[in-house]
Order: sequence, then C-alpha cells, then structure tokens
Amino acid sequence: MLGLMQDRSLLCHRVLEHAARQHGGRRVVSRLHDGSIAVTNYAQMESRAMRVSQRLLAEGIQQGDRIGTLAWSNANHLECWFGIAGAGAVYHPINPRLFSEQIAFIINDAKDRILLVDIAFVPLVESLADRLPSVERYVILTHRSSMPETSLRNAIAYEDWIAEGDASYRWPDFDENSAASLAYTSGTTGQPKGVLYSHRSIVLMSLIANSPDMYGFSANDIVLQVVPMCHANGWTWPFSAPMAGASLVLPGPGLDGASLSELLQSEKVTCTGGVPTVWKSVLDHLDAQGEKLTHLKRIYIGGSPCPRSMIQAFNERHGVEVRSAFGATEMGPMSAICSLMPETNGLEGEAMMDLRQTQGRPPFLVEFKICDEHGRRLPWDGQTSGHLRVRGPCIVQAYYGKPKGSALDEEGFFDTGDVATINRHGYVRLTDRAKDLVKSGGEWISSVDLENLASDHPGVREAAVIGARHPKWDERPLLLAVRREGAKPDKAEILEFLSGKVARWWLPDDIVFVDELPHTATGKLDKKVLRAKYADHLVERIPE
Amino acid sequence: MLGLMQDRSLLCHRVLEHAARQHGGRRVVSRLHDGSIAVTNYAQMESRAMRVSQRLLAEGIQQGDRIGTLAWSNANHLECWFGIAGAGAVYHPINPRLFSEQIAFIINDAKDRILLVDIAFVPLVESLADRLPSVERYVILTHRSSMPETSLRNAIAYEDWIAEGDASYRWPDFDENSAASLAYTSGTTGQPKGVLYSHRSIVLMSLIANSPDMYGFSANDIVLQVVPMCHANGWTWPFSAPMAGASLVLPGPGLDGASLSELLQSEKVTCTGGVPTVWKSVLDHLDAQGEKLTHLKRIYIGGSPCPRSMIQAFNERHGVEVRSAFGATEMGPMSAICSLMPETNGLEGEAMMDLRQTQGRPPFLVEFKICDEHGRRLPWDGQTSGHLRVRGPCIVQAYYGKPKGSALDEEGFFDTGDVATINRHGYVRLTDRAKDLVKSGGEWISSVDLENLASDHPGVREAAVIGARHPKWDERPLLLAVRREGAKPDKAEILEFLSGKVARWWLPDDIVFVDELPHTATGKLDKKVLRAKYADHLVERIPE
Repeated sequence: MLGLMQDRSLLCHRVLEHAARQHGGRRVVSRLHDGSIAVTNYAQMESRAMRVSQRLLAEGIQQGDRIGTLAWSNANHLECWFGIAGAGAVYHPINPRLFSEQIAFIINDAKDRILLVDIAFVPLVESLADRLPSVERYVILTHRSSMPETSLRNAIAYEDWIAEGDASYRWPDFDENSAASLAYTSGTTGQPKGVLYSHRSIVLMSLIANSPDMYGFSANDIVLQVVPMCHANGWTWPFSAPMAGASLVLPGPGLDGASLSELLQSEKVTCTGGVPTVWKSVLDHLDAQGEKLTHLKRIYIGGSPCPRSMIQAFNERHGVEVRSAFGATEMGPMSAICSLMPETNGLEGEAMMDLRQTQGRPPFLVEFKICDEHGRRLPWDGQTSGHLRVRGPCIVQAYYGKPKGSALDEEGFFDTGDVATINRHGYVRLTDRAKDLVKSGGEWISSVDLENLASDHPGVREAAVIGARHPKWDERPLLLAVRREGAKPDKAEILEFLSGKVARWWLPDDIVFVDELPHTATGKLDKKVLRAKYADHLVERIPE
Repeated sequence: MLGLMQDRSLLCHRVLEHAARQHGGRRVVSRLHDGSIAVTNYAQMESRAMRVSQRLLAEGIQQGDRIGTLAWSNANHLECWFGIAGAGAVYHPINPRLFSEQIAFIINDAKDRILLVDIAFVPLVESLADRLPSVERYVILTHRSSMPETSLRNAIAYEDWIAEGDASYRWPDFDENSAASLAYTSGTTGQPKGVLYSHRSIVLMSLIANSPDMYGFSANDIVLQVVPMCHANGWTWPFSAPMAGASLVLPGPGLDGASLSELLQSEKVTCTGGVPTVWKSVLDHLDAQGEKLTHLKRIYIGGSPCPRSMIQAFNERHGVEVRSAFGATEMGPMSAICSLMPETNGLEGEAMMDLRQTQGRPPFLVEFKICDEHGRRLPWDGQTSGHLRVRGPCIVQAYYGKPKGSALDEEGFFDTGDVATINRHGYVRLTDRAKDLVKSGGEWISSVDLENLASDHPGVREAAVIGARHPKWDERPLLLAVRREGAKPDKAEILEFLSGKVARWWLPDDIVFVDELPHTATGKLDKKVLRAKYADHLVERIPE
C-alpha cells in the first residue's frame, strides 16, 4: 500500500524557485574577472536561469545532454547551472586549472554539446577546440560589446544568447533520478573519472547539509563560496545557500588572501569554507595587515587535513569556529563534519585539538564502515584502522559510463580509497590514502601521519612521505621535505624531532630536501610524480 | 539519462538505525503513568523496535496492514512506531482524548489488525471491543506482572510479546512511497479523515524540520515532546530528534504545568513546543512557584494562535525565544515557522510582536498560494486575504480511501481550509478558518481577529465569534465571552474596548456571556456546537 502524499519530485531547479519566491531580494554578490563587484538577487537569477533553459531547448538540447561550463564562481555561472538542470540537461563544470590534456579528455568523455566559457578562458578553449568534435557551440559569458574576436565554432555572447525568453515559462517536472550534473574527480590515479549526480542526490545532500551540525545555513547567513563551483559541485553550497535563503558571495578568480579578506569584511560574511592552502593565505594577509575578522562565525576546512595552528589562529585571533569537513566528488560531496556533541563538548586542550582534526561524524543518510582487506567489518575503537567505505543516496554507485553498481561492494558500500579509524562516538579519523600507505614488512605505516609531524618542525614548509622499495622490508618510508625560507634543518635534526612521536620503526629511512613538491590541479600533493622519481631511492642508496 | 548515485530509499526506520549507530548512548527519557521516570537510549530502542518488527511478521502482518497504538508519549510507544514501520506495516496512532464513538469509528475505518494499548486505556478499549471486528489481538504495553485481568481478544503483555528476537535481524529496504503512518484529523467538520503518510514524506519532513530556521535540532539539543505522539505525527519530532542525535524527553500523561515544568528543569530541556493552552499552565505554574527556566532556548507554539502576552512572558521572564509554528495533519504536518530573517530582524516593539504572531514562512519543499473563490491567485501584499493552499511532497493528495489527487486543485495544491494573507516577505498570517468567516453583506469579517482582540480585554478569559444569521446582512458577528474570575465586564464595555481597533462594521451585533466554551478533543474551540446553539440568536433578538 502506497502513501497518499503529493507526488513532487526533488529537482535542483525547485531550489532556485523557492529562493526566488521566499527570498527574492536576497543578495547574490560576484567578483568579476576585472576585480569589480556585481550584485544580483535570487529573483533576477531565476528569471535569467529560465531564459537559459528556454534557449537550450530552442537549440535542440535533449534530456540528459551534457553542457560544459568553464567559469569561475559567479552569478552567471550559477544561473547557467540552474538553467541547464531545469531544462533536463546535465551541467558539467570543468576545472580550468586542470592540465589542458585533461580538459580535452573530460570534454570528449562527457561529449559536451555546448560549452559556456568565461571570457578569461577563451584562449585556453581556442587552443583545444580542434580536439573537441562534440562541441556544437561556444557561449562566451559576456556582453556583445566585450565579445572577443574568436575562432570558436558558432561563438555567441551569453547576453545575446539569453536575450529573449517567455516570462510565463515554468520549469517542468520530471523523474528526480534524472542526471543533473557530471563532475570529474581530480585524477591523482589515472584519467579523471566522471560522477553523475542525480537531481535527487543534489537536493538530498543540500537538505542534509543544512542541519545545524553540518553547515546549518539560515536565511540570516551570508555565505562565501570559496570552494570553486567546478570542484565537487562546490561542496553543494550553490544549492544549500538558496535553499535556506542565505545570501551568496561568489569570489570569481579572486582566491588570494587579500581579495578574500576584503570580501569577508565588506560583505559581512558569516560562514565560509575551503582547502587549508587558501585559508593560510587569508590568515597571513590578515596578520600582515593587523586586521581582525568581525563577522565570520564558522569556517569549514576540508580537502586536506587542517593544521592545528590554523584551527587555533581562527579561534583565538578571530573568534571563528573551525569545523573539519570531509568528502569527495564520489561522496555527493560532503560525508562528515567535525561538529561537537555531548560526548565531546567537554574536551579541553590537546584532546579537543585532536578531535577538531578528525574528519568528524556523518549526518543521517550517510553510513560509514571500516573493513580489512577481505571486507570484514572492523571495530569502532579509535585504534583499528581499515578501508573506509560509505553508503547512502548521495553516494556514487558507478562511474560515468560504467555499469550500475560497479563501484560498490556486496553490501552496497563505495570504497573511499581512504584508510581510517572510527572511535566509539562515531568520529572518523583518516590515517592515510590506501594507495599511499607504506607497507613495511607486512605492517602499515601512515604517510599522512609522518607528513603532518614533519610539517610541525619549524624549519619545514611542506613534507611528503612515500613508500620506497626496500630489499628486506618491501617498502620503507622516504621523507621529502621543503625547507622554510632561511631555515636549514638537516636530516639528523628532523629525525630527532620525529623520535618519540612515532614508533621507532616508523622513522623514515632517508630524508631528501627538495626545492618544491609537485601538486595536482586541485592543490593536492601529487605522489604519482614522487613515486615515479623516488621509488628506487633506497635501493640505489643501500650499497653505501 | 539517470544519475549514477546509490539507490537507497528514504525509510522511517533508517532514522533510528542512524541514531543507534551514531548516537547510541543518547538518553530517551519517559514519564510513566505512575509518574516515575524511565531512561533508555537509541541503541536499546533500536534493538527492541527490531523485535517488534519480527513479532509482527511472525503474526502474519503484511506490508500495508494497519496497527493501532493507543498510548501516551513514551519510549515503548516510539519503539512500536519504528518496529511497525520497519516491518512494512502502518502505525496508526489514536488520540485517547477523542470521544469513544470517534475512536471506534477510526479503528474500523483503518481496519487495524492489532492494537497496542497503554495499560491506562484498557478499560476504554474494553468498552469498545465489541464494535471492533478487525482487531485480532490486543497488546498491553506492560510487563506480565502488571498485566490486568481483561476480556480483550488474545490479550498479551508487550514485554512477553517482544521477548524473543534474532539479534542478527536487519530491517528490509522497500519503496519509500509505501505507507508508514495513518493519522486522523481531529474532525471539527464531520467524521475524522485519515491522512496516509509515506516513509518518504516523513523522512523529508524531518530533514526539512532540522534546518536552523525551522526546529533546527542538533545533537546538543534535549527535546521535550509535549505535542502528543498521537497528534499530527507528533509534529514529526519523534523522527527529527533521533535524526539529529538529539535527546528526547517523552512526558507520558503528565501534561500539566507542574509536571512539564519539572521535566524542563530536571532534564535540562533546550527545545520544546505545543499548543498555547499547555504553555499557559506552565507559565502559571512557574509564576506561582517564582521559578525561572534556565536551560530552555526555543519554544514552538502552534495549533492555535499564540497570545502576545505568552510570547512576551517567555521572552522577558525566561529568556526563551517563541516561534509560532503552523501546520496540520494534512500538511505533513509542519508547513511554516515564524523565524526571523534580514528583512525582519530589525523590527521593534509592536511591529515585532505583529510578526511573531504570524504563522511564519515555509521552508524549501513547501509552497503556498492564496486564491479567491475562483482559484485565481491573489497578491502577497499583507492585506489581501484568500484561501490558503499548499503544495509539496509532504502534503496530502487524497484522504485515506479516496482516489489519488482528489484533495488537490488543478495546480496540485491542497486547500488548507484557512484564510490568510501573505506579505511581501512571504510571511503567512491566518485571518480565519474559511468556514468560520462571517460573511456580512458579501464582505468577510475575521472571527479570529475579533476573538483575539476581545481576549486582550483584561476581564475576558476566552472569546468565540460566530456568524449568526441576519435578515438584512445574511450574517453578522456574535461574540460569546467567558468572564475572568472576579471580573464583570458588560457588553458596552467590551464594545467600547473593540471600537477603533476594527472597522466599525466589524463590531459584533451582540455579546453573550457564558460560563464556558465548548472545545474539541484536541483543545480547539468547537464552533460546530456554538453554531448549532446560537445561529439564530440575532434573528430571535431582532424583534426587541
């Protein structure tokens, strides 16, 4: 027997409809590529997004067709997302910081029919266009008066493209399981892989995200979208914010410390988040200027582990609560937030800092388990580490182009590729990426733990640990370190610093000082490159 | 093209699974019928709820079968809900305060196969049992040692009934549109009507309800469930609280001012809600004792309009924020909360009180419109009042036993039966029940507005306004008033008090002082009774 409640689908475009109806005048602020500030609101955004939908339908775009977007975080980009999804097509945000071969690969893999391109990326796209046979038209996100001379096929200025529209147009209703967005992983292992979000998964994730122990956006919040929209669906904030009626601030290309600090203060931002690298530059800028943040309340830090000193700096100098955030493109994208609860409220000092550095606990509709190599569940004791797997309606079941369920284990869980402990209160702590674990004589050594410890040395700016081949132990840890300017720590000093902080057999077999470490397009350590160069370092050294 | 995210249904029992896994030790406190306090937690509740499911399946209960519950709000009752829904059956909470004919009517209308009954209601059920042919078994919510002698068919003590269970049992997955709960309206117009909630609608409503501008429960909250579980799905709190990992306090039969005040303080309750009548008795008790509430932060008041003096008393004497709440069994059940936002934060004095008395604004997935008699949309200007209609996946589409969509207009909206204005910021203000409007010479007069004004007179304890027949104007307002103890206001004094506060032609044609006013089982004014008695009062009086 079925219930007798209304049949209403969970659709992305209903979020903007709600925001336009209930919070139509709420500000949406964008920094443009020339540094200037543009202001619109949800009512205007809805009207323009509906013109995008109508235009796509007029061009013969069908349900499920992919439309690429190559743009910074700004209001035009966001209204395109809603317009594309509202028409039943699939928005495919492309990270402009990827290597150009990767950009060409994912456009061809997605078979994008139209590309919507920020004016700043026209030269980049022109250099690739020969290799993009699926793209029928390029829409440049600008006015006719600013339109560059371009060789791009059927190029048109965005404002001309959406100039006409029927004001009585209303978005259609359709199956909430329809694809809404195609997001590619950053590809630290092989080619980028596509994750095909459904309308349902995006709406559910945004609902979950707005609970107080997650982001908890309210109509009184002003949210700065520092995570680029092209990265992991912008952590779902482009939907969570309008869903709550929160104001949205989109920083465009200005992701440097000075530009972000200015927006935080001038727009009275209450809530923001992003990767640690960005916040380091914001803190450095504020320190240099002797400024304090006066409006910001909460900051969500994820993507890589948040250093203890950063948590303290925000809390003590600026009165801002830092919550670690954990997720991935495959995880819909946010699976856990480190918020407190009765069992952890009373922690103090180092114990509280230890907790703040965990990846936190999952909300309803996200379920974790940790497993051994054979898929057997391991205990939640905060000590035993295992492969972290996750289940829920916002989690991937198969990569784009692969058979349904092909990314799942027999219980329907997706393997995150992370190794983690879970404590008795359900807080997850990542100990490593599975592929980055060092397997020494059958025992695991966490590369992340060693990197974090080495980075705490005042003379070390950045550190990386890989498993280097070893004739006796199979693998042993090798530490690669970048010295801080003016500092000259040597190998003995670093080893001395690490001693006593980890088991003796965890200490790296060698330390190599380098000028810089390689990073992926999204700013993560690129261990693929390090392994290619240093895998035999210990073997070659042994004879000495 | 469909997305490639996991197929996981939104099911009620997943809420308790989540709470048991992530917040297993969180307290669930019940006041029993003897006044004593019993404490359990979500982990224990899950284990017992799974035994309820197994027992139902063993008794041959099928998907969609209805199981009635006649019980106060307590942990046993709640675990029964989860156990019934987890087995794929439908829990049907029965309000013990209904008239016995109504109780018999709804049990027969629902065709309940099993009744789960608090020990206090055994005599009531025994008096009806002859008229309940569908009920195969009565489970008394007690231990064998407290089991009364009873004539009820196949009666068994609950603790015996659920004594056995397979600890490896896991709840099944099924279609989220399956019926989970059957809730009956209180029936101020004719017989009670059933609303058949789906698993999906309950889970979505609970997710929505946990956004900060709605209830916004957190794992740090301690929630007192004053709204009886048998009323409008307990305002969805029995799901919202465990979903957030909040502690739940269930007051059993103790809904008097003294019992509730004690629980608020002893359990350090942070959040609660209910109808104004209950909170009046709590405030009176606290005043008489000279006590102040020291833990409570937010209180949600709905069911009928919250008096201004109550908002002020909670705010000024106890430091508690009052938020008006608006909903109905048909509305899933909560459709709007009066929380502030940038456009209203700055209001002061009377303007703020006016806002606080509105029904508030709807969250995402709830959509209102106001219409004239022909279904044409009316403007959101805060002045024009019209029939309030609502759309969304948590709103009813047809009453139980009626064809799909039969309760909807051509745009898919359900008519709430209320008349309301909506202002330009989207706040809804009820002006009357459609059937209670006084239609004087083709113009509408709000009975609720007149009642509220009359109740503000210091000598009036309660007031009711009905449209009484009138030879010239069709209907004219008649005010029925109960005097406050010791006060002796007369007709002229009340009319003088109302003058200038409403248009001259709104003033009641007559005022009748009565000893008390009739109420329905859920505490609402029963105007049906008043109309039956006083409809011809003005006609009969005219000759004078």
